Amino acid sequence: MEFKEQLKKYQEIINTELEKYLKKENCPEKRLNEAVEYSLMAGGKRLRAILVLVVYKMFKQDYTEAMPYSVAIEMIHNFSLIHDDLPEVDNDDFRHGKPTNHKMFNHPTALLAGDLLFNQAYVVISKDLKDSTSNIQNKLRVFNEFSNAVERMICGEYLDTELEGQNISTKMLEYIHENKTGALLKLSVRMGAILAEANEEDINKLSAFADKIGLAFQIKDDILSEEGNPEITGKPVGNDKEHNKCTYVSIFGLQGAKQELEKTINEAVQIIEIYGEKAEFLKQLAIYIKDRNK
Amino acid sequence: MEFKEQLKKYQEIINTELEKYLKKENCPEKRLNEAVEYSLMAGGKRLRAILVLVVYKMFKQDYTEAMPYSVAIEMIHNFSLIHDDLPEVDNDDFRHGKPTNHKMFNHPTALLAGDLLFNQAYVVISKDLKDSTSNIQNKLRVFNEFSNAVERMICGEYLDTELEGQNISTKMLEYIHENKTGALLKLSVRMGAILAEANEEDINKLSAFADKIGLAFQIKDDILSEEGNPEITGKPVGNDKEHNKCTYVSIFGLQGAKQELEKTINEAVQIIEIYGEKAEFLKQLAIYIKDRNK
Repeated sequence: MEFKEQLKKYQEIINTELEKYLKKENCPEKRLNEAVEYSLMAGGKRLRAILVLVVYKMFKQDYTEAMPYSVAIEMIHNFSLIHDDLPEVDNDDFRHGKPTNHKMFNHPTALLAGDLLFNQAYVVISKDLKDSTSNIQNKLRVFNEFSNAVERMICGEYLDTELEGQNISTKMLEYIHENKTGALLKLSVRMGAILAEANEEDINKLSAFADKIGLAFQIKDDILSEEGNPEITGKPVGNDKEHNKCTYVSIFGLQGAKQELEKTINEAVQIIEIYGEKAEFLKQLAIYIKDRNK
Repeated sequence: MEFKEQLKKYQEIINTELEKYLKKENCPEKRLNEAVEYSLMAGGKRLRAILVLVVYKMFKQDYTEAMPYSVAIEMIHNFSLIHDDLPEVDNDDFRHGKPTNHKMFNHPTALLAGDLLFNQAYVVISKDLKDSTSNIQNKLRVFNEFSNAVERMICGEYLDTELEGQNISTKMLEYIHENKTGALLKLSVRMGAILAEANEEDINKLSAFADKIGLAFQIKDDILSEEGNPEITGKPVGNDKEHNKCTYVSIFGLQGAKQELEKTINEAVQIIEIYGEKAEFLKQLAIYIKDRNK
């Protein structure tokens, strides 16, 4: 199967699973559930969820047991987008080409829909743990790494918000993104490996790979914000500039950022070369992060 | 020891534990940690945390293993207060006689401090689970009930916000508070009982007790909002009226609400009478909920 086809298939699998969980949602207020569904099903790339499954599959065939964690990380990612878009944070009006949650619903609904989705991730994990009959120690390790990564994500988001408009060092910029974007991407890869009972050496190697794609992901985001097609990205162009954001583009320039991106993806690919055929999809995914247009 | 003295001792124990966890907090941004600490240590009654320990002690002496859950529920409770106070929700300027989080810090900081504290509860639980060597099935049950109760709390908060200023039925009012306030109080009691390996009959009986004190707690809150001393409650009087809130006082009148409170606490006390001496502190706690002036 072609990579693009396979990617689409994975996205459909994740979407079907997310819809299953949404149906189980038991908040009596329809409108709040609608707000959660609106953002969760708004057409994200499902990159984090897919990474969990793909890495799992490098070590074990049937990824069923990894699915709840794949779903949970997608929920956390989408909660973070809802809160990041709020007027008091990034004040964004569009996401995936649609009005942001608080624009579509209202401010308190977006706040609480974010909280609900946030918590829903832990509902999913707690249910899986309670019903588990095997691999429990790895699942508990994953739950612990999960909550710690979410903490880092929130701290990264805070730093990003706090330092907006200020001149910051490349080191600080990297630090912010290691937390804000990198922590969850790394978590995805680590969850897949840990759940599939990979050994520590493999877990560490794949973590290093995740660090690289996390960095690449952010550089690409900054490039898209500068020169992406707003009809495809779903976000207005020049948003970062307008907010005076310190980005890889504002630091390295557009060409410099592209070189940095190329270099980072090459390094990522090199790390997983040792896995050969088994890591082919992961390699393609890394290249996709570099070449994507949204 | 006198009840009041004992209560204070429990509060000090909880505060010491919370401070321990705050020190472990590893967000690199000092200001965000300060915002978390500001709200978490603002002088709450620690009722939920205490309930966990007190119910645990009815069945087992050493409540050490219940402590992380006691700390976690206090974190969730305080996160919910930060988000509830935000301008887009209740828009409250004071809490425990001090400026609310967004007034003391700023709006995005309060949002993210809430998120961080929310997640911190799960960090605490995940660490405990990962390191646990015994009672694991009960702890997993507790984690599952925990996440479900938080979900109900958020839904209750949403309904409360959505229906503000509308005329609602007593049934709807009860439904909102069963979720918004009741869910966590019930969870506290259930966590204590489940962790202490109480049998299902005892868990159910204590849940029924928790339902009563949850209801009483809310009625008393409404009464205090109408006639409390703002210098003691730390909240302005008549806030609910001003916001056109539907409360037990607006439905039953002040005298009617007081009768309802008396009746509910009597019922609560009756449920736990069967436990005799063992439930003495719990009984006093129920009466304290009725008689408290803040």
